[in-house]
This record gives sequence, structure tokens and C-alpha cells, in this order.
Amino acid sequence: MFYHVKELQHPAKPECPDPVFARKLQEILGGQFGEISVALQYLFQGWSFRGDEKYRDLLMDTGTEELAHIEMLATMIARLLDGAPVGDLEDAAKDPVIGAILGGMNPQHAIVSGLGAMPADSVGNPWTASYINASGNLLADFRMNLTYESQGRLQAVRLYEMTNDRGVKDMLSWLIARDTMHQNMWQAAIAELEAQENIVVPSTFPRHLEKQEVSYTFFNLSRGEESSRGRWASGPSMDSMGQFQYVAQPVPFGRKPKLKPAPPYMHNTMLPGHHHNIPPHLA
Amino acid sequence: MFYHVKELQHPAKPECPDPVFARKLQEILGGQFGEISVALQYLFQGWSFRGDEKYRDLLMDTGTEELAHIEMLATMIARLLDGAPVGDLEDAAKDPVIGAILGGMNPQHAIVSGLGAMPADSVGNPWTASYINASGNLLADFRMNLTYESQGRLQAVRLYEMTNDRGVKDMLSWLIARDTMHQNMWQAAIAELEAQENIVVPSTFPRHLEKQEVSYTFFNLSRGEESSRGRWASGPSMDSMGQFQYVAQPVPFGRKPKLKPAPPYMHNTMLPGHHHNIPPHLA
Amino acid sequence: MFYHVKELQHPAKPECPDPVFARKLQEILGGQFGEISVALQYLFQGWSFRGDEKYRDLLMDTGTEELAHIEMLATMIARLLDGAPVGDLEDAAKDPVIGAILGGMNPQHAIVSGLGAMPADSVGNPWTASYINASGNLLADFRMNLTYESQGRLQAVRLYEMTNDRGVKDMLSWLIARDTMHQNMWQAAIAELEAQENIVVPSTFPRHLEKQEVSYTFFNLSRGEESSRGRWASGPSMDSMGQFQYVAQPVPFGRKPKLKPAPPYMHNTMLPGHHHNIPPHLA
Amino acid sequence: MFYHVKELQHPAKPECPDPVFARKLQEILGGQFGEISVALQYLFQGWSFRGDEKYRDLLMDTGTEELAHIEMLATMIARLLDGAPVGDLEDAAKDPVIGAILGGMNPQHAIVSGLGAMPADSVGNPWTASYINASGNLLADFRMNLTYESQGRLQAVRLYEMTNDRGVKDMLSWLIARDTMHQNMWQAAIAELEAQENIVVPSTFPRHLEKQEVSYTFFNLSRGEESSRGRWASGPSMDSMGQFQYVAQPVPFGRKPKLKPAPPYMHNTMLPGHHHNIPPHLA
Amino acid sequence: MFYHVKELQHPAKPECPDPVFARKLQEILGGQFGEISVALQYLFQGWSFRGDEKYRDLLMDTGTEELAHIEMLATMIARLLDGAPVGDLEDAAKDPVIGAILGGMNPQHAIVSGLGAMPADSVGNPWTASYINASGNLLADFRMNLTYESQGRLQAVRLYEMTNDRGVKDMLSWLIARDTMHQNMWQAAIAELEAQENIVVPSTFPRHLEKQEVSYTFFNLSRGEESSRGRWASGPSMDSMGQFQYVAQPVPFGRKPKLKPAPPYMHNTMLPGHHHNIPPHLA
Amino acid sequence: MFYHVKELQHPAKPECPDPVFARKLQEILGGQFGEISVALQYLFQGWSFRGDEKYRDLLMDTGTEELAHIEMLATMIARLLDGAPVGDLEDAAKDPVIGAILGGMNPQHAIVSGLGAMPADSVGNPWTASYINASGNLLADFRMNLTYESQGRLQAVRLYEMTNDRGVKDMLSWLIARDTMHQNMWQAAIAELEAQENIVVPSTFPRHLEKQEVSYTFFNLSRGEESSRGRWASGPSMDSMGQFQYVAQPVPFGRKPKLKPAPPYMHNTMLPGHHHNIPPHLA
Repeated sequence: MFYHVKELQHPAKPECPDPVFARKLQEILGGQFGEISVALQYLFQGWSFRGDEKYRDLLMDTGTEELAHIEMLATMIARLLDGAPVGDLEDAAKDPVIGAILGGMNPQHAIVSGLGAMPADSVGNPWTASYINASGNLLADFRMNLTYESQGRLQAVRLYEMTNDRGVKDMLSWLIARDTMHQNMWQAAIAELEAQENIVVPSTFPRHLEKQEVSYTFFNLSRGEESSRGRWASGPSMDSMGQFQYVAQPVPFGRKPKLKPAPPYMHNTMLPGHHHNIPPHLA
Repeated sequence: MFYHVKELQHPAKPECPDPVFARKLQEILGGQFGEISVALQYLFQGWSFRGDEKYRDLLMDTGTEELAHIEMLATMIARLLDGAPVGDLEDAAKDPVIGAILGGMNPQHAIVSGLGAMPADSVGNPWTASYINASGNLLADFRMNLTYESQGRLQAVRLYEMTNDRGVKDMLSWLIARDTMHQNMWQAAIAELEAQENIVVPSTFPRHLEKQEVSYTFFNLSRGEESSRGRWASGPSMDSMGQFQYVAQPVPFGRKPKLKPAPPYMHNTMLPGHHHNIPPHLA
Repeated sequence: MFYHVKELQHPAKPECPDPVFARKLQEILGGQFGEISVALQYLFQGWSFRGDEKYRDLLMDTGTEELAHIEMLATMIARLLDGAPVGDLEDAAKDPVIGAILGGMNPQHAIVSGLGAMPADSVGNPWTASYINASGNLLADFRMNLTYESQGRLQAVRLYEMTNDRGVKDMLSWLIARDTMHQNMWQAAIAELEAQENIVVPSTFPRHLEKQEVSYTFFNLSRGEESSRGRWASGPSMDSMGQFQYVAQPVPFGRKPKLKPAPPYMHNTMLPGHHHNIPPHLA
Repeated sequence: MFYHVKELQHPAKPECPDPVFARKLQEILGGQFGEISVALQYLFQGWSFRGDEKYRDLLMDTGTEELAHIEMLATMIARLLDGAPVGDLEDAAKDPVIGAILGGMNPQHAIVSGLGAMPADSVGNPWTASYINASGNLLADFRMNLTYESQGRLQAVRLYEMTNDRGVKDMLSWLIARDTMHQNMWQAAIAELEAQENIVVPSTFPRHLEKQEVSYTFFNLSRGEESSRGRWASGPSMDSMGQFQYVAQPVPFGRKPKLKPAPPYMHNTMLPGHHHNIPPHLA
Repeated sequence: MFYHVKELQHPAKPECPDPVFARKLQEILGGQFGEISVALQYLFQGWSFRGDEKYRDLLMDTGTEELAHIEMLATMIARLLDGAPVGDLEDAAKDPVIGAILGGMNPQHAIVSGLGAMPADSVGNPWTASYINASGNLLADFRMNLTYESQGRLQAVRLYEMTNDRGVKDMLSWLIARDTMHQNMWQAAIAELEAQENIVVPSTFPRHLEKQEVSYTFFNLSRGEESSRGRWASGPSMDSMGQFQYVAQPVPFGRKPKLKPAPPYMHNTMLPGHHHNIPPHLA
Repeated sequence: MFYHVKELQHPAKPECPDPVFARKLQEILGGQFGEISVALQYLFQGWSFRGDEKYRDLLMDTGTEELAHIEMLATMIARLLDGAPVGDLEDAAKDPVIGAILGGMNPQHAIVSGLGAMPADSVGNPWTASYINASGNLLADFRMNLTYESQGRLQAVRLYEMTNDRGVKDMLSWLIARDTMHQNMWQAAIAELEAQENIVVPSTFPRHLEKQEVSYTFFNLSRGEESSRGRWASGPSMDSMGQFQYVAQPVPFGRKPKLKPAPPYMHNTMLPGHHHNIPPHLA
């Protein structure tokens, strides 16, 4: 169960409105790696977790914080949209700044949301739960979480580069710091789990049941061998259970597939030599 | 540029048709973490990469292999659908096996694809590029790749548990082994990059520009302190640049936001005391 | 900013696992009118609202409660999935109950979420923010909210009919009661706003600027006049500003549109008599 | 069955082309609350309705009119795109008006639709049937319809503010008037049904089966009590069956959920103390 | 502008309810090639067409007929759902027919639509306008229309095979016949346009501006030359403007791409040798 | 199985960066008819094909070539984005060219992909597999392929008109030429199949089972008879099995549908005269 306090976790106030930047900032609110994604991903992982309570708590704590980040971004975007111009283009184009604003802002901020934030990314794709996952396997999921914090911090840094507004930069520097923590935090949790299990997810599948002859083999499928110069091409494997091997000229292990004909009730392509063949059961 | 050979990378032949399992197998072909996702994700990362050729080659090699895995799964699914029943339910229900098949198979395998694989997941959601990303930052992207191989291997292992067919298990044991390699491989590549940079993505953003006072702080936002028992709650941070801190009772740092009224041309909610207020410019 | 307590708002414990019902229950978690929809819709409306704080608080209070309902449903679904069978069909079909479960459950509950709830509806469509809206106009938005509580309560009632499990019914009877409150609540808020403004949204657009000759006219566009028997066909309009009129045989007011030819650089269909006409600028 | 006449319901002719406004106008054609939504929503509600013919007729009449509105908007958009510039940016940027047009128009209007309207919204999201619903319960559905006419009229009014073109304003003033009628009409139909049933949807679920102790309770979940100042916080409930109550400090009624461990064949996270535990059935 | 008559174009009455078949029939109502697709595709093509009125009329006539087909299918589906069982699984599984129905029907038909048709396909994907197109080039669009009628008739025929219900078969035999006509009709219209223009779309692009050396060349990119046995591998091209050529061993014409480094403000991957390189502008 | 060579099939190098054109070019990479669509469509058709190997090979050869086209476009887009400006709007607007670039480019190219191509169209919709199909019936599928090459060449030609960059035009002239070949090629393959079968898909459904009385009938459903002037309105049908007929005033063949009431457990709208009717089973 949740409670809300009306204060923001951190201030979210720009120096000046900037509707074009409002559009861009939507990316880290409602985009693939935005705050809606991390909030709901962590909460769903927490709710579904069937084990040690400290991990469930970790997930619930962090998911709950991300709700506060959605709130900060929604507030900031509404303020960046304050008094946004909506008028006629021909008039607007006389003033290059107004023209650029009208050309560059998201029209839905005026038509649909009435100068409020939208649950969408910077080009207007609505947020979708197909961005997120909770698998029940914590090591798999914590890696996903580390990924999201990595991509999310990268996007926040890029947005920091795109504005001179000190209020916006102030809020972004908070979010960037929290992403630093969250990357460190998921790294720490991953380290704990990897120490208990193995680094290969899931660790509970017996290795003898997989085709171990290719469990550490690199197939060079792009002509040229630049890929042989990496750590993945030779030496002990990262899980310490094998040696990396580099196959410079990989070949197929299977044969040409030959599929059986479809049954007549499928009405797939006729077989040659069976012209105008009505399926027997319909004739 | 690509070339195709007609042989499969590894055989993909079930002992018997099983249309219900065909539906399930779609998950690792066209689902969020399926082979279409990894193939296109690695290829897009490779095509967009602006740096050391060995990483581009690594991405292209692996993306090209994943195309072969799409092919194996598409072939296997077509064979699992061989001669699938499509008939009338009432008749079918007399035979519990037929009834279960008709109830459990994906109707689109019969109506839409004519007993072929579909670019969709196990419940029929078409594959979407919103699953994947290529950010230009390799460390961020390799973490995403490790995530996908972790979730993907987990799903392949679960599918392995759901069938007794030795042909299917044989193919899955190949894919599981390749996922073992790919997890090791992305781990190796990540280790290389982390050794060069820092573990926090992106490593090029100066730390003094972020709110460093919260860069290693854990906020306990779920009442109860189970989350304090983890590696993330105390001790040196994983990036060796700070100390984890646990804040048991976090408070807001911002104030209650108060947004400005919308301009009258937005026709948002009327302000109280301004009954029936037609905007001045329209009066 | 948000806080979480680990207790549920109301218990969410079934008498017995029932993976098929788990799939159905997803509808009111992650479907169009599910709890994710109402939670995020109310929160976004609250964050974007630019006016009287009591409405913002109303929205935040209720959005925060809906987060607790997501939590209850996610918990219930995980429990309904306890120990769900995943095995081979042919074996399963020997036991009709197991066969029915395997045929009727969502395969992603086993393959993807590891027996946890998913942010998706009862057929597996991931939740999408295209379900929700925050327009900045409270009367418009409160009507949307009333709609969602009406459809949501209807679905909860239908699900109540589909199970004999007393634990599930107990939780549903809580959600149904809360939907009763929420319908009453949005009705009350709507009544307040309608008393201040007019019932037509937005109330701030001057009526003389619309084509008032058709502001209360019903066009009978399906041959036959059954539609004339309703309150909407005659008598004073609901906004008390006009009289309903019924036009039994409506006619067009416009003319046949005739569009101008496309410019040659569009390469649209050639005009007849201009065979093989290469656009002049390319010739 | 349907018939078409070639005349428009109302003229749809702009004074001048304006490709940027064409993009904006797409919102009320193919957006969430656009004409495709209302047309298909009313028609599906009509086709599925299992009761009094006057309601079915009401739905079919209005759905049929909305098809005419799609037609008017599609015609208007094509004309706003007449001769739209498509050329090179650097040239265009010399003329600020052309530059603004090229920057602000939807590139798909030139590349994809050849200067025609698209079944999409103002940022290019294709229309999706996930916007609409037909539930079989008319009171629920008429509330949805009132919602759509409210949001739709709001958007039409906002678009009216964004243009000086008298031809466009003329068409919008028709659509706004029709939305006035449709809001009145759904209000009238709702009033009829509410008079017969109760205002809570569905009215057929016995109240004693819901948790009546919370059927009229407001939970104040955002710290601070601004929400107590509304009609929803005290006094008789809107359905006249209870009294609103305000709970200033709500507490949980459930307990901390504790989920059972997942079965080993799920390969979820290992339980602590069970290092490297291969599931027994695979060992 | 449109008119509706209440009679169906053709009867749509099953002998018996069959909720499982209702689910399947959704494919040709709301699937990729279903009636919503053809109706809206033809209407949008008509509304956007800028030329000879006979083609616009052809499109409007046919689009209008397809609306009647949506209506017939929606009616049929509602009737197939008459009295559908919704109850508890364990009870149901005692009767194999009921069990199969409950397992095989779409749960949204009971929970969401109240036993009505949905604007979705047979696995529940909501219809999306990304299925359709109107390009402004009639030859391109008529080929798309022929495609849709081909795929649509194929699916209707497959559904015909899946039922023994004479009422359903009767309706399908109408739709199949109409698809026969519509395939013939689009073929006829294509023949007219191809006679005027050339068969290559668009016909207005001067051939000397394309790389004519590869305009009739087949590249054999799958090892083995089975593809040389077709009409496309030799002889005069279908547009009579060249000769097909078969290149058995195709080679690249370009070079290895080498992309420039990203600017530092992108925070892409660090260049090797530039460890911990803070971008100069942030230092 | 696939192999990659690092050289491009054809050069993909612009004279100058042009981030606005990069956005537009996304349409033929990740749009409905873009290269991802044709690549995956042909490959899935090939993998599912159950017949003569020359057709499978044709599909695999061409699908493999389209992978090279994705690669060329991804490379070109990355180069068009070289050094794209990302800065503050107010500064930028002082230079109209920079202002136009910032307004017209896709913000995700800077925020999300780090100046790389995205698997999305020109307005940012992610590519979706709902664009493509493999039906198992080759004639149906080859028509779909011809459609895609027709729409795709049309879009490539329009893009050719939108740029003065000789490097971009050079690459487009390659793609346009390949589309010429591919249109010819699918025409040739279609001609082969039509010669064997009939032109109506599927050819295996016995004609006497369809309602032959309307298999060649044109229904004039838009008032006015312009549509009678086409080849489809009279004369022998294209399949030579009938005569086209034109029905100037079509009438319905069915009756007004009257649906049965819903069962009480659906809680649909109450029947009139049954006020406050609690369903008997709940009373």
C-alpha cells in the first residue's frame, strides 16, 4: 500500500518555459528507459518475488522512489509548457524563435494534454508495458535493471547537454546522481547473487544437458577476423568453467530443411503437377 | 552485405508434431527476448558503432549468428505444426487430446500463417522494435545484450522443461549452449570496457556536475528495513568512488509544486469565481 | 513523493491455485480499464492540474489508492499461479482438469514471468498508455474517470461470476465496493463542476461561434425511426440552452469534394491523357 | 448495410493550404478521441446490443454520422496539403515560412500518403482499436461516449484557436456544434437509464455481496487534507444509498504478503542456502 | 456522407452458438486482412484520391460494402457467443465439451465485450491502422487492395474448413464470393492502369535516373542455384524494357563503412587511448 | 545460416550531413514498406514454404539482399547525423538553418540512438511485425511482395525528390533500380503461378461452394454511377469464369438482426420492465 506526500523529492522548476525542451524531456519520463519503465519494472519484480525479503524490499524501495521521479518530470514538463504559443504558423514564422518553437514542440502538448506531461516518449509513442519485464529470476532481472539505469543515465546526460536552463540542469543533476547510485546498487546486488550462484543465468540448469561443445565457442560469421582481438575469443571463460575458442570459418551443423507439404484443408500453394486440384474432402 | 547457405546451423527436427508447443516456442522466436530481438539489436548496434572495429565485428558476427537461430526456430515451429488439426470443436472434444490441442494452439497458426512460424510471441503479440535499442554507448548496450541473453536462456530452459520431445530438446540444448557462450562473451566485453572506463555509464560525465551528496545514498521508502541487509546499503560503492549510505527515513527535498494557471486559449478547467468565463480574446 | 508500507490494503489470498483464472484476472490489472490505467490516469491528471488544490488532492489520493490495487491483484495472481503445471500436453490430456489448465492458462505466465503477474490484459496485450488521458480540463477528465470506474466495476463483477473461490471473491468484493465509492466520488466531483460551469465541455467556448442551428439536432441516419423514441429526440436540451430536434430524413449540407491534382514531384497516379508523363522537373 | 452519397455533410474547404495545420488536425481524425474512435465505438456498441431497439438505432444513427465526419476531416486535410513543399532544407531555410512548414509538417504526409490524410494522430501514432470499447452494458458505454464527445469537443476548440483560416474555422464550428448535440444526447440517454437503474454500474450486482463498509469511504492517501473540502467527502452519496465518509489517516487491512517459493522447474532465483542447486528432476 | 439501413447485406445466423469459433472468426473482422482493414483502406484511398472520379467512386462503393461486412461478422460473432459459459474451470472440466469451450474461447468476449464482437483479431490484438495504407498512387494502392482480398479470401476459406455449422458456412460462402469479385475487380482496375502507364510503380520516374545496370539483375545470395529455374532469372523483363540476368556469385559494390567518431556531447563509447576523457566543453 | 561481409552492397555516403533528411530516410528503413519489412517478410515466407525449392530459394535470395539494404540505409542515416547539433533552442533560432534543423530532426536520434539509425519510421513509430505476413499460399504472398516493392519504390522516389545531395541520390538510385527488378521479379513469379492455378486466391476452393450469384457483381453503393465506367463493371471477368455485372441500386439480402438477451451473469444492460433486477442466481 502506498502513501503520497505533496512535496517533491527534489525541486523541478525551470528558469524559463521551453516547450521544445519539454518535448525532449518526455523521453526520460515515458520512453523505453524512462521513469515509468523503471518504476513499474521494479514494482512488478517486487510483487512477484518469491524469496528473501531483503531483495523484495530493495525492489519496492527503489520502485517507490521512481514514482517520485515520474512526479518530478511531470511537474517540470508542465512548467516548461507554461504559456506555450499555439497560434497560426504564418504569423509565427515572422519571429524565428516563435516559429522554431511551434515547429519543434509536440502538438499534443497543446491539443491533447492542455500543457501537461504525457505518458509518452519524445516523439509521442505512448508508453507500453512491452518495455519491461519481471521474470522471477533475480539475477536476470537485476541485469535488466542495471541496463535500464545505464541507458537512462546516458539519456539524462545527453539532455543535460541540450539545455542552458539552470533549473532544468539542477533537476537533471539529481536524476543523474540517483542513476549513479542505482547503477552501483544493482551492481552490488548482482555481485551478491553471482557469488552465490554462477554468472550464467539460470544457474540451475545442469550443464551436461546443454551442447557443451559450443558453450564457449565464438563463430566468426563476418568475413575478416577483427573480432578475434577481444577477451571473448580466447582464454578462460568468464564463468571459469571453460576456455573461449575462436572458429574462424564456421560451417553449418544441420542439413537443408525440407518441410512436409501442407494438408489440403490449408489451401496453401498447390503442388506442381496438381493443377486446379480441389482438396479431396471438398470435391 | 549478407550471404545465406541453405543448411541450418544445427538440426531443428521434432520427433512428433505438437501444435501447442509450437505456440509456446514462438516466445523465443518473436517475443521480447527472442531471436528477432537479439539479431536486430546486435546488427543495429554494429551498424551505428563509431569506433574500434573489433567491437563492430563482434556485434556483426553475433547478430549474423542470431539470424540462423531465427531460421532454426522458424523451421522447428513449421514442423511442430505439421498436419495440425483445425476442425470442429464438438467433434474434437470427444478425443481429449485433440480437444486440448485445438484449445491450446494458436488459431493464427492455422488461419493466418498456414502452419508456419509467425514473427510474434507465445500469445500472439507481433514483434516490435520497441523491444530493442542501440544507443551508441557500448557499455550501456553490452549490458543490454547480457540482459537479453540472460532472459533468453532462462526462457529456453523453461521451454526445455515443458516438452518430452527429444528433437526439440536437442535443438534447445544447442540454443542454451549458445546463450551460455553469449553471456560469457558479453561479460568479457563488458569487463574490457569497464577496465578502460568506469563502471558507471556514461563514464564521461564529470562527477562534480551531479548531486554527489546522493550518488551513493539508499532511500528506504518501504516502511521496514529489510533492504538494509544488502551489499548496496553500506561499505564502499562498486565504482570505488564513494561509500554506500542508508537513509532509514527519507524526506522530500523539494516543495509542493504549484503550477501556473493555463492560458485561456487552452480551455482547461475554469478558475473558481470566474463562472462562465469566456476567454477575453473570444468574447 | 511516495512511501510504501508492506501490508496490503486488503487481503489477496485465494483458497486454491487456479492458473486459468489468473489469466482472466489480468484484465482488471493490465487491461484497458484495469488498475494500471486508473492509477496512472489519476496521477497524471493530478500532476498536470493547474488550479484548485482540492481537486489535485482528490486525484492524488485516488491514484495512490489505485497503486495499492495493482499490488493486491499482482499478489493474487502470483498466488493463483502457485505450482502451475507446465508439462507435456499428451501426458496432461489424460487428466481433463490438467489438460484444461494447460490449454487455458497464459503460456507467458510460465515462460516469461516465472509465475508472476504481468502488466498485460487477459489475452496478453501489454498495457499501453494510449488507454489513458489527462487533458487539463477537469470536467472532461472526471467524466473519463467515471467511465473507467464504470467499466472497471462491470469487469470485476463479471469476474466475480466466474469463480467459486472464496478468497478471490473476498478480494473482488473489496474492489467492487471501492469502485462503488469511486463512481459516487467522480459523480460528486462532476456535479460540483457542472454547477459552476455548464454541462457542455469546454464551457468556455462562446456558443455563437459554433453552428448553433445544429447544436441540438438529431440526424436519423439509419432508415427507420426507432431513435425518435428517446429523450434526446425532443424536449429541452440537457444544458437548458435549446430544444432537441429530430430530422427524420437528413440531407448533406456540403458538395461533392473535388481535390486538386497532386504536384508531379509526388508521383501519384498519372492523369489520364498524360501517358508516361515524366514530371517536367525530372525530364 | 450502408450507402454513401458523394456530398459532404458540411463543407470542408480551407482558404489556403497549411500543411502544418494539416498535421495538427489529424488529432481529431485519428487520435484517441478522434472521429475514427467515435464512429467505430458507436457502431460496435450498436452491433453488439442485445435489447431495446431505440438504443441500437441511436447508436447506429450516430456512428453513421461520425463516418461523415471522418470524411470531412480527410477532405480538409488533403486540401490543407495541396502543393505542400517537400524540398531540400538548406534552400528552404532561407525563407522562414517555408522552413517552418518543412520543419513542422508530418513527413509521412509527403512520403507515405502522397498529400492525403492518414488514419493517425497529430504525432503519427496509427489509430488503434485499443482506444475503444463496447461492453454490452449501455450505461457504462454511454458514459464512455459522453467522455469521448467531451474530450473531442475540447480538442476541436483548441484547434479552432490555432488557426486564422476561415474555411477551417467554419468546418470546426460545425463539428463543435455536433459535439454539443452529442454531449447533450448522451446525457439524455444516460438520464433515461439512470432513472431506470441506479447510477452505479452495473446496477444488477447485489450490494450485500460487496464490502459495504468501504462503499462510500474516501481514503486520504496524500498527506494533507485538501481533499476533504469536496462534495465527495461528506453528506449523502450520489446514489442515495449511503453517506460519504472521510478517513484522514487510512491504514492497511491486509498483511504483508509472503509468496510460496517457485517450483524448481521454473528456474527462478535460487533459495539462499541451496547453492548451485540443480532441480531434483534434472539431477 | 453515409446512410445505414437496418437489414444486413446477407444473413448472419449460425445454427448453434460456438464461442470458440467466435474467437477464430475475429480474424477476418479485426485482423490484418479483416473487414475493418479493407473498409478503412478503401475509404481513405477514396477520400485522398486526386483524379478521375470513376476510381474514387470504385473505392467508395467498395469501402461502403465492406462496412456491411463488418456488420455481418459482428452480428455473427454476437450470436456465436449466445449464452457462452463463463463458469469455474474445475466444474467445467468434468464435461469435456464445456472444458474445451472455456479453454478455447477468448476471455475478453466474456469479461470485456459482454458477448459481443471486438475490433480485434483471433488472438486479441486490437486492430491497428498500421495495417493499411493510402499512398495517392492508385496502381500501388490497387495492388495492395488485391493483396488484401487474396489474403482475406484465403483466411475465409480456412475458416470455412473449421466449422460444420451450416449458418456460418452460408455467410462465409457469401464473403468468399464477394472476395472473388473483389479480386477480379482490382485485377481489372490494375489492368486498366497498367495499360496506360507501365507496370513499374511509379511510372513517372525517369529510368535513366536509376542504376539501370541492376534494374533486371537477380542476385543469387543463397548458395545453390535453384532460384535460376524461374521466369525471373532470364528472358525479357515483365515491363518489356530489359532482359533478366542471373548473377550466380554476387559481390559487394561498396566498401567497408567507417563512421566518424561521435561528438563528445553524445557521450557515446570512449575512444581507446582516451581513458576517462571528460568532454572538453564540460571539463 | 547466414554469413556477413563487411563491404556494403552499394556505397552509402552523403556529400554532407543532413539530420532532417536522416529522419525522413527512416521511412524506408523502418516504416511499413521499409527494408526491415521486406527482409523479414521474404525470409519468413521462405522458412515456412512447403513446396518447390526454387520458390524457397527465390525468397531466401531476395530476403538476404534486403538485409544488405537495411545495412546501407543504417549506414547512410548514421552519416547524415554526423555531428548533428543538439543545443539550446534560443541560441539556435538565431541561425535559421540551425533552427530548422533542430526543429525538424528526430530528437531520438540525439537522445536515444546517439546519432545512429533507429528501427523506426520517419515519425518515430517502432517497426512492428504486424506490417508483414507469410500465409503459406505463394500467390497471395507474392502479391503482397509486389505491393511492398511498389509502395517502397514510390517512397524512395519521393525521397529522391526531397534532397539535392548527390551521395544520397546515388544510393537511392540503386535502391530504386533494385525495386524495379523486384517488381519485375514478383510479376514474373506471379505469372508462373497464375498460369498453373487460377488468378483467384486460393484456387483450390471449389467454386460451387461460394455464392456464385454474386461472384462477379459490382454493387454501386455510392449514389451516382461513375463507377460503371470501369473495366470491372461489364465484360468477361478477369478469371474468364464469369461476366461482370453492375447493380445500380443494390438492396439488402438479409433481415434486421435481433440478438438474444444476454444471460444475467453478464450484467449487461437491464431489460426494460425489469427494474433493479438482481440476477436470480445472485438474489
